[in-house]
Amino acid sequence: MRDVSIVGIGYLPVKKEYDLSLRKLGAEATRRAMQDAGVDKVDALFVSNFGCDEFQGQKHVGPLIADELGLYGIEAMQVRAACASGAAAMRVAYLTVASGQADLAAVVGVEKMDPEISTEILAKALDAEREIAQGDTMVSIIARLMRMYQDRYHVPDGGLDNFPFLAHQNSRHNPAALFNAKEITQEKIRLARTIVDPVKLFDCSPVCDGAAAIILAPTEQARAFTQTPVSILGSAVANDALRVSDRKDPLRMDAARISTQKALQMAKVDQKNVNFFEIHDAFSIITCLSLEASGFAQPGEGWRMAAEGRIWPDGDVPISTRGGLKARGHPIGATALYQTCEIVEQLTGRAGENQLKAPEIAMMNSVGGAASTLITHVFAV
Amino acid sequence: MRDVSIVGIGYLPVKKEYDLSLRKLGAEATRRAMQDAGVDKVDALFVSNFGCDEFQGQKHVGPLIADELGLYGIEAMQVRAACASGAAAMRVAYLTVASGQADLAAVVGVEKMDPEISTEILAKALDAEREIAQGDTMVSIIARLMRMYQDRYHVPDGGLDNFPFLAHQNSRHNPAALFNAKEITQEKIRLARTIVDPVKLFDCSPVCDGAAAIILAPTEQARAFTQTPVSILGSAVANDALRVSDRKDPLRMDAARISTQKALQMAKVDQKNVNFFEIHDAFSIITCLSLEASGFAQPGEGWRMAAEGRIWPDGDVPISTRGGLKARGHPIGATALYQTCEIVEQLTGRAGENQLKAPEIAMMNSVGGAASTLITHVFAV
Repeated sequence: MRDVSIVGIGYLPVKKEYDLSLRKLGAEATRRAMQDAGVDKVDALFVSNFGCDEFQGQKHVGPLIADELGLYGIEAMQVRAACASGAAAMRVAYLTVASGQADLAAVVGVEKMDPEISTEILAKALDAEREIAQGDTMVSIIARLMRMYQDRYHVPDGGLDNFPFLAHQNSRHNPAALFNAKEITQEKIRLARTIVDPVKLFDCSPVCDGAAAIILAPTEQARAFTQTPVSILGSAVANDALRVSDRKDPLRMDAARISTQKALQMAKVDQKNVNFFEIHDAFSIITCLSLEASGFAQPGEGWRMAAEGRIWPDGDVPISTRGGLKARGHPIGATALYQTCEIVEQLTGRAGENQLKAPEIAMMNSVGGAASTLITHVFAV
Repeated sequence: MRDVSIVGIGYLPVKKEYDLSLRKLGAEATRRAMQDAGVDKVDALFVSNFGCDEFQGQKHVGPLIADELGLYGIEAMQVRAACASGAAAMRVAYLTVASGQADLAAVVGVEKMDPEISTEILAKALDAEREIAQGDTMVSIIARLMRMYQDRYHVPDGGLDNFPFLAHQNSRHNPAALFNAKEITQEKIRLARTIVDPVKLFDCSPVCDGAAAIILAPTEQARAFTQTPVSILGSAVANDALRVSDRKDPLRMDAARISTQKALQMAKVDQKNVNFFEIHDAFSIITCLSLEASGFAQPGEGWRMAAEGRIWPDGDVPISTRGGLKARGHPIGATALYQTCEIVEQLTGRAGENQLKAPEIAMMNSVGGAASTLITHVFAV
């Protein structure tokens, strides 16, 4: 098995709505990543998308994007793990290059969401028979987890507000972030409307459009494409019961614990070596539980990390350094690719105003559904 | 990279409609394959499905099937390439084992179709913007290809009828085939109703339900699980323009030519070493064009292979030996896994009345959409 590195990145700013079609949006991000790597073709293209079936009426997005790029006779497929699809596609591209089946592989995440039907489509990441059919939606399940957490650990009202506050602050210096230009105060977060009690507006990441891509190559050839390759040290997937209430402890996020352990073990590092953590902050409570399950906080203590400043850019575990899903935006299938592009920028000193001080190792998690899929990656420069 | 073998297979008979839910159907096939391999867990589970988003309102089928099997903390993901999804999932499982990221990987294909909306859902494998939006469906495009072929090569009416006739004859000895009990004559095929001219009923594979699964392990450990492992010698994917009319010659099926070349090269064999060819006979014209593009017939000559007996069980290139998609059935996401299970049975002398004489090398193709994705695998015993 060969070591694999990222040799090119490309993305478009996240927007509420793009006029570009899905194919053009996905192709443009891939083109930018290919340009960054200085290549005009790839051997394989893995596409990540969540809602194309319903949003675009399109179920064959591998050849769709390859076609728009003018690439034929290559490997083009779609990989899915609900909201973690981007990480799933990256993992398959990683395996393709690691195993020697491709020398250059592109991964593109692209999503064009229709806000009119997003709630219904997003719910399909849950258990259709045992959750959706009972009247649950993604937010209703998130609300139950948040209530359970606040009750069990006696978290004061607004105890999780620091997560969205941090994300919005960090997004101010990321020109590709959806809420880049928005000034968000603690007060605005506190006074925002309730979505499903106790989840309020700022506890949720936004419905939006976007596309981001990376190019992978064997590490030993990486410097032919870029002076600043970033290597993929660890990659792991773990599942949990699909229905949240089937889990022994819904607040434990076992799949996150397992995928983190596997990925860190593969990377031969541990939590204290991780300089920053691009976290799947789709909802405040998921951020909090991810910090705990991934071993950065004890159960019930995750929410204190924000208040104590530990997850801020100058803390010991910076998260969502460019705004995260909350403020950069969460165009579902594209999200993990945005995270990866941001990690590459951080590790190679290109993160602008949000640049951390010479980080060497980054971790990323990707949460599918209500944490029934967890994918963890570890990167190093 | 490690060599990889199939060490277990399992499937349920194809039926018009199963009462079992998608999760139970998929889990049952996987359980049978695991039982065949003598294992009670796997490291990874790759799921293939086409229409779960619309048929079941479920977009997260990796953890769905793993959950039903009682498997947690494992890698569970979905891989898609439209009607070739089963082969795509198998390829990813192959890469996972080959690269050393899993020692035991299951691949399950499962489909529960809703005939009320199948035409609409199947069309999404085409180009949504440039074909579906113009009024095309899968069958209308297939009809255009068939008409073009018959005109260009002066094929007499009914010239392709031998393909469905062969498939139905071969299915008579396959108890898992949908049309196992149906007696189909040349006359019935000739007199059947037109679907979209010139495509008639028997030129189309049926809408149906099914599930099939395989277990993969490193070849060097394969005999710990079975006395009759089947190795995967070649695996390759190629794409073509998504819209059929964008291809230089829509009858050439370039992606089939390329994926066949790649897979045979990887397997270090050529067409004359292939003892039988499990072909994606979703439509008569696709069977015909596949034989040509894969190098078994000259352009315009594929249809003669049936008349000349060459593709029958005692011919030099037997195809669809257990009924193929046409008569075993084509439960989309499950199809390539049924093909693979049948290949394993043929190569290990378990194909019953349809057993070929000591075949050693088999080829399989999987066609996504109207041949915008082609996946070819080569197996050996």
